[in-house]
Amino acid sequence: MPSAPDRIRELEHAIDGVVQSYEGTLEINNLESAALPNKRAVVLALNHLKPLIYMGFYSQRALSRDNLRYGVSEHMYPAYEALVEQIARAVSYEATFRSGPSHAPGWSGDVVLRLLGRLKELRQVLNADVIAAYEGDPAATSIEEIVFSYPAVEAITTHRIAHALHQEGVPIIPRIMAYHAHERTGIDIHPGATIDAGFFMDHGTGVVIGETAHLGKNVKIYQGVTIGALSTRRGDSVRPLPKKRHPTIEDDVTIYAGATILGGETVIGKGSVIGGNVWLTKSVEPYSKIFGRAKEVD
Amino acid sequence: MPSAPDRIRELEHAIDGVVQSYEGTLEINNLESAALPNKRAVVLALNHLKPLIYMGFYSQRALSRDNLRYGVSEHMYPAYEALVEQIARAVSYEATFRSGPSHAPGWSGDVVLRLLGRLKELRQVLNADVIAAYEGDPAATSIEEIVFSYPAVEAITTHRIAHALHQEGVPIIPRIMAYHAHERTGIDIHPGATIDAGFFMDHGTGVVIGETAHLGKNVKIYQGVTIGALSTRRGDSVRPLPKKRHPTIEDDVTIYAGATILGGETVIGKGSVIGGNVWLTKSVEPYSKIFGRAKEVD
Amino acid sequence: MPSAPDRIRELEHAIDGVVQSYEGTLEINNLESAALPNKRAVVLALNHLKPLIYMGFYSQRALSRDNLRYGVSEHMYPAYEALVEQIARAVSYEATFRSGPSHAPGWSGDVVLRLLGRLKELRQVLNADVIAAYEGDPAATSIEEIVFSYPAVEAITTHRIAHALHQEGVPIIPRIMAYHAHERTGIDIHPGATIDAGFFMDHGTGVVIGETAHLGKNVKIYQGVTIGALSTRRGDSVRPLPKKRHPTIEDDVTIYAGATILGGETVIGKGSVIGGNVWLTKSVEPYSKIFGRAKEVD
Amino acid sequence: MPSAPDRIRELEHAIDGVVQSYEGTLEINNLESAALPNKRAVVLALNHLKPLIYMGFYSQRALSRDNLRYGVSEHMYPAYEALVEQIARAVSYEATFRSGPSHAPGWSGDVVLRLLGRLKELRQVLNADVIAAYEGDPAATSIEEIVFSYPAVEAITTHRIAHALHQEGVPIIPRIMAYHAHERTGIDIHPGATIDAGFFMDHGTGVVIGETAHLGKNVKIYQGVTIGALSTRRGDSVRPLPKKRHPTIEDDVTIYAGATILGGETVIGKGSVIGGNVWLTKSVEPYSKIFGRAKEVD
Amino acid sequence: MPSAPDRIRELEHAIDGVVQSYEGTLEINNLESAALPNKRAVVLALNHLKPLIYMGFYSQRALSRDNLRYGVSEHMYPAYEALVEQIARAVSYEATFRSGPSHAPGWSGDVVLRLLGRLKELRQVLNADVIAAYEGDPAATSIEEIVFSYPAVEAITTHRIAHALHQEGVPIIPRIMAYHAHERTGIDIHPGATIDAGFFMDHGTGVVIGETAHLGKNVKIYQGVTIGALSTRRGDSVRPLPKKRHPTIEDDVTIYAGATILGGETVIGKGSVIGGNVWLTKSVEPYSKIFGRAKEVD
Amino acid sequence: MPSAPDRIRELEHAIDGVVQSYEGTLEINNLESAALPNKRAVVLALNHLKPLIYMGFYSQRALSRDNLRYGVSEHMYPAYEALVEQIARAVSYEATFRSGPSHAPGWSGDVVLRLLGRLKELRQVLNADVIAAYEGDPAATSIEEIVFSYPAVEAITTHRIAHALHQEGVPIIPRIMAYHAHERTGIDIHPGATIDAGFFMDHGTGVVIGETAHLGKNVKIYQGVTIGALSTRRGDSVRPLPKKRHPTIEDDVTIYAGATILGGETVIGKGSVIGGNVWLTKSVEPYSKIFGRAKEVD
Repeated sequence: MPSAPDRIRELEHAIDGVVQSYEGTLEINNLESAALPNKRAVVLALNHLKPLIYMGFYSQRALSRDNLRYGVSEHMYPAYEALVEQIARAVSYEATFRSGPSHAPGWSGDVVLRLLGRLKELRQVLNADVIAAYEGDPAATSIEEIVFSYPAVEAITTHRIAHALHQEGVPIIPRIMAYHAHERTGIDIHPGATIDAGFFMDHGTGVVIGETAHLGKNVKIYQGVTIGALSTRRGDSVRPLPKKRHPTIEDDVTIYAGATILGGETVIGKGSVIGGNVWLTKSVEPYSKIFGRAKEVD
Repeated sequence: MPSAPDRIRELEHAIDGVVQSYEGTLEINNLESAALPNKRAVVLALNHLKPLIYMGFYSQRALSRDNLRYGVSEHMYPAYEALVEQIARAVSYEATFRSGPSHAPGWSGDVVLRLLGRLKELRQVLNADVIAAYEGDPAATSIEEIVFSYPAVEAITTHRIAHALHQEGVPIIPRIMAYHAHERTGIDIHPGATIDAGFFMDHGTGVVIGETAHLGKNVKIYQGVTIGALSTRRGDSVRPLPKKRHPTIEDDVTIYAGATILGGETVIGKGSVIGGNVWLTKSVEPYSKIFGRAKEVD
Repeated sequence: MPSAPDRIRELEHAIDGVVQSYEGTLEINNLESAALPNKRAVVLALNHLKPLIYMGFYSQRALSRDNLRYGVSEHMYPAYEALVEQIARAVSYEATFRSGPSHAPGWSGDVVLRLLGRLKELRQVLNADVIAAYEGDPAATSIEEIVFSYPAVEAITTHRIAHALHQEGVPIIPRIMAYHAHERTGIDIHPGATIDAGFFMDHGTGVVIGETAHLGKNVKIYQGVTIGALSTRRGDSVRPLPKKRHPTIEDDVTIYAGATILGGETVIGKGSVIGGNVWLTKSVEPYSKIFGRAKEVD
Repeated sequence: MPSAPDRIRELEHAIDGVVQSYEGTLEINNLESAALPNKRAVVLALNHLKPLIYMGFYSQRALSRDNLRYGVSEHMYPAYEALVEQIARAVSYEATFRSGPSHAPGWSGDVVLRLLGRLKELRQVLNADVIAAYEGDPAATSIEEIVFSYPAVEAITTHRIAHALHQEGVPIIPRIMAYHAHERTGIDIHPGATIDAGFFMDHGTGVVIGETAHLGKNVKIYQGVTIGALSTRRGDSVRPLPKKRHPTIEDDVTIYAGATILGGETVIGKGSVIGGNVWLTKSVEPYSKIFGRAKEVD
Repeated sequence: MPSAPDRIRELEHAIDGVVQSYEGTLEINNLESAALPNKRAVVLALNHLKPLIYMGFYSQRALSRDNLRYGVSEHMYPAYEALVEQIARAVSYEATFRSGPSHAPGWSGDVVLRLLGRLKELRQVLNADVIAAYEGDPAATSIEEIVFSYPAVEAITTHRIAHALHQEGVPIIPRIMAYHAHERTGIDIHPGATIDAGFFMDHGTGVVIGETAHLGKNVKIYQGVTIGALSTRRGDSVRPLPKKRHPTIEDDVTIYAGATILGGETVIGKGSVIGGNVWLTKSVEPYSKIFGRAKEVD
Repeated sequence: MPSAPDRIRELEHAIDGVVQSYEGTLEINNLESAALPNKRAVVLALNHLKPLIYMGFYSQRALSRDNLRYGVSEHMYPAYEALVEQIARAVSYEATFRSGPSHAPGWSGDVVLRLLGRLKELRQVLNADVIAAYEGDPAATSIEEIVFSYPAVEAITTHRIAHALHQEGVPIIPRIMAYHAHERTGIDIHPGATIDAGFFMDHGTGVVIGETAHLGKNVKIYQGVTIGALSTRRGDSVRPLPKKRHPTIEDDVTIYAGATILGGETVIGKGSVIGGNVWLTKSVEPYSKIFGRAKEVD
């Protein structure tokens, strides 16, 4: 239904208004940001990396040892192409507009080839995560069910890829990946967090894991657990932020729903169990069992 | 932007690496899983079942008693076709690779026809859920607003479909449906949970309801409520898991935001009100009012 | 795989069943709702409004002062067209079927032109929100990262648009927008809530902000914070609901993860800090620091 | 690959040039033509009308007497909707900008309902065309092959629909349909041409049939046949064009490849056979056999 | 724009009319034809076969010896899958409804594997066709231009594939392929025609080559040439059609635009040149030069 | 329907066969051609250029002087981007693999800007073509009908764009454009042909116009007319082809259906009329009327 001519004139005035609003000094007026990476392409790359890891679960085609190589190529090429282009955009943007480091022309290709070269190893770690989910949730009836329908698998798979790129110093892209996983699962893991194998988050909604957190092997957490920072101001040259602002969770720790653990010097000792809704800002010894009781009515 | 020949060679090496990584014994190396159901098709089926239930709210076309049958057919056929195929895949996979029961060839068609035959009844129950949402949220201005924009409606509609298939013994598909609802609403209801009519979850983000939970009529819960299990280890032949691991919530119970109720023998008596953030692992009498106070500052 | 003729007959019976189920008096049997707005079109409009606000971050094309006007037009026209049509549908539905107010024929066009005319001003407020996120999260490395990957930006941008339409008295559409943001971020803000500039929600999952809440400048909240109502019954002519049912949060307040603040007369005084998981139903003085301690184990 | 800023400036100059070129008096400068029908929608309607006629050949779904009505509805609704809208646009354009007749508001709906009501009858005529093709081409092995892969079927089906609308006085739309068939088959039949049942064009490429041509029953023609006008000037008030400018071909005539038959008073008598490449501008008796020989070398 | 209720009723009547029209005995009332192959899938298969033949001309990705195998697999798998399914449909339809031969279950897979196994050989023949086009058209500036923009290449490539399937006895599919090429090029070659290597059709529009025609090596023809049958009646048991109804064109013959050559016993001897618009129904000696002159005015 | 493992093995053998077939010396084995332009992108560019010329006929949106500039920008930007990229590919391919001329890096941008700068002038010429069609076909009822449904307009519009690029020395792209028009209209005009304003081709199927043809103002031709070359051998250094190989048609000439005019020295004098199916290889005086009569039977 075409609009009447006078409406067109009013609309053109509204356009003028928005155009003029880009003339001021707002941070969001930056027009150079058009050179930034493209979210959709980053998500596309992720969606090609996942089948590489869980081929049998994603393929629409019968697979055998004979055609496995084709199945892998089919996802490797587009993943490579999309990631190289988006990383190149991110890096060039940082170098041009935000005094980021200058990289050699082929750097983004090198980074992606290193990531793809590490998939073999990531598959081992993620297999341990899948097993941990199976062992950790009595309601799970098969490995297939876990790969297909556990937000924990979606979130940790994306995190391990994003973390690998974050370690390489790739800007922006790892955060876009983390945000994508957050949108789909309600689980917010900063790409900087270091998480060892056998990690499981049951249900997962509301989980937050901060940039400098370290989680050991076979850690299990429930929905709504925060592993966060105490200090939330931005550092400056006078009072720089400490490098480690988020807790260390040692091997075999279990943290129940809604617990909050804060602070870069907080260490949850190996094998500890932290109860639901507990609020912790100091370290606990290995094999501690920490339960708040105040609100439990029994 | 085509890549240079030497890049192609390196990429082909990375492909070899991933292909070789499928030769070991990782659980995720299973190539047979290509015979598994397809998530996208399951979601497509769901997206045709919803208009059957809330026809007037989804139709892009004027409806009257005259063309209602066409409107219903238009969604029934594709829902039937997609579900029959996906259930057949799931069942055949279970039978072939995981010693699941063998079903007669037409079994998946029978199951889907029974589900479609029950839509009439599901519509009555879901209507009660919609009314419960309208009565339970003073901010709601119309039934239309609730069907259109309440995560509770999205989640409980999907649950009632997934639960019907779960009761039939359909593998995997109900979990895929539940995960889809979880992704979109932040509400995680296991398809096994039994939930009576008139159920409302306000806001909903972070709600978790376990496999063997039973919720009576007119239960109302808020965001972040967990109705979960105490024991989280996987059972085995020596110490089998109890069949009922999640609570029973009787009719007319209200549970406020963030409350956690755990255990298969825990019964929340009819008409009780459970306060926000309360942590409960034992039964409470009918008409109890349980409020934690420890953290309230007043 | 076409179904056999006898299956077709059974399926046609199931169709009859569903058709008959629309003959009763269920609220969800309303067939007139086909005249309701279309969710997809509302989301499309939102997806054209965002680039208008953050042009440089969304454009796939190099931008300069020379072609900025084209970039703006490219999104303004489809946003205008989609919104005018959907608002017209919503308003006409309300007027026809729910005794909503009758508006002049061009009303929806007027409303949209007013919204578009206010984008200039909304951009200023949202810029302050983006800056607040940058200042409030030490892990953020750039403005670009915030616009690209912070759920808070997604949620508050959508809210400011939905709120503007809610203020104009547009029915249903603002709720569809809010639900869309809720789905993507886990943040549930009622379009009626009034929120001043410089608002930041870190992580965000599980945040709930009620219809009559008012938040002042530079408020910062964390995941799982509820700013809700005490009374949750639906008002009637005998006991009408109070107009203000949700709290007032004054300027410069910080509320940590999982805190719950309830009640229309509850005022959190300027500059206060509310601790994690705190449960508050009464007002606190300016510059209060309220921390629950009961469950903290230290 | 974003363009450099100076390129943007040059491009903006080119835009200015084109914009200015719309200020003159060229016929193609008419901006009102945006209210014209949309080709794509007209083709969409055609693509829904064809399955109504040849249901069994187009359905992707098993058909039986039980679900036939659904199959018909599935195409009838979108065909109706698309045609009503496009005819309304065409008629309103003619009335507003070209002093076309004013029609009552529901006129385009009436026309489409009449067309749809005549489908029953069109199906009988087209069945005769299909049979004629089968009888007329020894290479055809089945009716199915003819419906699927004979340009004659594509062209005559489209013509019979376009002709029905042309008879109703619908402007522009019938020509768009005819052009679409021309593009796909190389057969150019003016929507005004009257063609009786049992018509077959073998191969078809290059066939031209003019506006006032009349073809009787069971006419068979080959590729490259022209049934055209002698006079090709546009008439005016002094020398109006004769109403009938194209030949009459009586029943059971066969015209071989490349023959050209011209003139409104030219009548090819019943049962005649016209040889390949023959050029005819005068009538021939019934049962004539006309062969040119000049170029035959034997 | 939703239609009014009374319009819906009229439309439902039109639907009834069409449904009833399927109750008679028209040939096009056949509902079983829903089991027929799907045109779109056949075209999809063709569009995967062409890149296999002209890989370098179609690939969007840099190719080298290293990734060529991936490039081939990428098109071979979907071509195989689409063809096997469509051929199986065609064969099963013929067997069930038209007393066609019964084939073993894997027959369609065998046929497709044989076709794919012959691609190596087809590529040699088509290379000769491409060279013939380059040599035969002085306006061609490169092989690339010919593969990209010569209808002859489109048509002969499709023909060689369709002919291979026709030789295998595959029903319907070859005709669908031929029709697709006809639509795009105006060139109508029956899949039964036997055409040796080095075949070129300049411009091509209007070319017709019949089912039992045989063309030798290095034949060159121009637009509008017909190589057709004299007799066009359908044979029966009393007067069966001769097996060979279309001409034989020996090696190195050139036929200029618009020439018509008819009859199963007509042989155009090696090296002959047939002039434009010539009409021939008898054989000519090798190295003949046949030119009609009648209409030339000089 | 996944294939069985043994089928996969056979298919992999077929893949090996095709891969090996690329090892020989066939011209179509060239793998570098992957750097060639992309047909789809060229067609996309054409589809953006047409609305620039006939804006009012293509716009889906109400147009006025106020938003015309936006409408123009909306097509100019994507046309520019697609053409620059494809021309750059074509030129770089020619320079790298076929010793084509080396152009400065910005050359393709310059060429496209020149083309876009000439649109103003092309619109004048095409307007004359449209008027010529209106005057020349008594069946045309409006300018709108001509722009919408005359193959002549499609073909000449594409030709004038392709010719402009051909004059600039752009390789391959003009031929791709010409082929696209040929596919859709059956009209084959070489991009090198020079055609003055006011050109009309009635019906058009089968028209062929050669590379060095020159057509004056207000030429009108009918379906099946060839304006071609006498000599069709490829030139070489000993016997180079003459530069002008196709006829000159002077102003105001009319050529009826199926006529063939050949030879670079053939000149059809101003105002001549050439009859249907006439075959001409020598020049004719101005105002000649040439009709063959041999096959006319009257």
